Amino acid sequence: MKLLEDRIRKDGIVKEGNVLKVDSFLNHQMDVTLFHEMGLEWKRLFSDKPINKILTIEASGIGIACVAAECFNVPVVFAKKAASINLDGEMFTSKVESFTKKKVFDIIVSKKFLSPDDHILIIDDFLANGCAVMGLIDLINESGATLEGVGIAIEKGFQQGGRIIRDRGIQLESLAIIESMDASTGEIIFR
Amino acid sequence: MKLLEDRIRKDGIVKEGNVLKVDSFLNHQMDVTLFHEMGLEWKRLFSDKPINKILTIEASGIGIACVAAECFNVPVVFAKKAASINLDGEMFTSKVESFTKKKVFDIIVSKKFLSPDDHILIIDDFLANGCAVMGLIDLINESGATLEGVGIAIEKGFQQGGRIIRDRGIQLESLAIIESMDASTGEIIFR
Repeated sequence: MKLLEDRIRKDGIVKEGNVLKVDSFLNHQMDVTLFHEMGLEWKRLFSDKPINKILTIEASGIGIACVAAECFNVPVVFAKKAASINLDGEMFTSKVESFTKKKVFDIIVSKKFLSPDDHILIIDDFLANGCAVMGLIDLINESGATLEGVGIAIEKGFQQGGRIIRDRGIQLESLAIIESMDASTGEIIFR
Repeated sequence: MKLLEDRIRKDGIVKEGNVLKVDSFLNHQMDVTLFHEMGLEWKRLFSDKPINKILTIEASGIGIACVAAECFNVPVVFAKKAASINLDGEMFTSKVESFTKKKVFDIIVSKKFLSPDDHILIIDDFLANGCAVMGLIDLINESGATLEGVGIAIEKGFQQGGRIIRDRGIQLESLAIIESMDASTGEIIFR
């Protein structure tokens, strides 16, 4: 998606350790006008799928998912990263290892909000090693819902997540795929 | 706001300990069509204010804030609850005590995203003791930005947060204010 690639080139900052900072428009400060365009693009790419719910994971996926959900006219469910007293009752659970935080955490979704009747689109801001998406797929599989596809804002094409998901026959639509990036020059090459 | 009050009456569940579960439409599963109507109402209520940015706090405020931000045509910044290696550089910080999680945590916003030029609307899902909003106000004051108002989905009117904020002369617009609720009958009385 040219609009997103242009924005990454303009405002993204490449840091050592394969870190791409896009916190000025994607995951700390959030450009909801851009999110709306991204939502329309996913709506176009998944137009043949009977999606009735979007699943994402806190925190930075939520904004993108909610704005995109308006394009699909469906509700969003977000997986939480820790139990709270407000989340009693039965839950679907999985485990995710965070690339940026270097730790493993539980993710949970109330069993009330995923069922065999659901046709789910997963939305998230980043795809790197694929752990977050695989955790969300676990929750969907536990529930008996149907996974219709995965929409990602930025895929790090040089990490394994995209290949793993596509090899499973899942429709994965990443709006920008980074082939390589160089912290010393700041150069970003898209696939 | 009648639409929100009706939805709380229909789908909200009153639990012991003054807990109101609205996780089927507000803060776990999220009805973005409702959020859009809430955004339009805040836009009407704050129509005379030169708001150029919305500030919220992860995680459950983000979805409401992003959909509302489309009505204001402004970006969202969300305060993060813990540092990650992706959030280097200088930050504004404060502390918040969580009502539901019974613990104190740091909240942070990058100094890049709040400045004296900003006119901020705070948006969050719940207002109870007011700690989260007061923490966000701390960040705004540190930055020199102007606080234009606070938009809350559900205020627990029997807790002190609303009074503290209104007593400071801040325009607080809670779309539903709960005067009292009874876990034994499930009854909810709005102000």
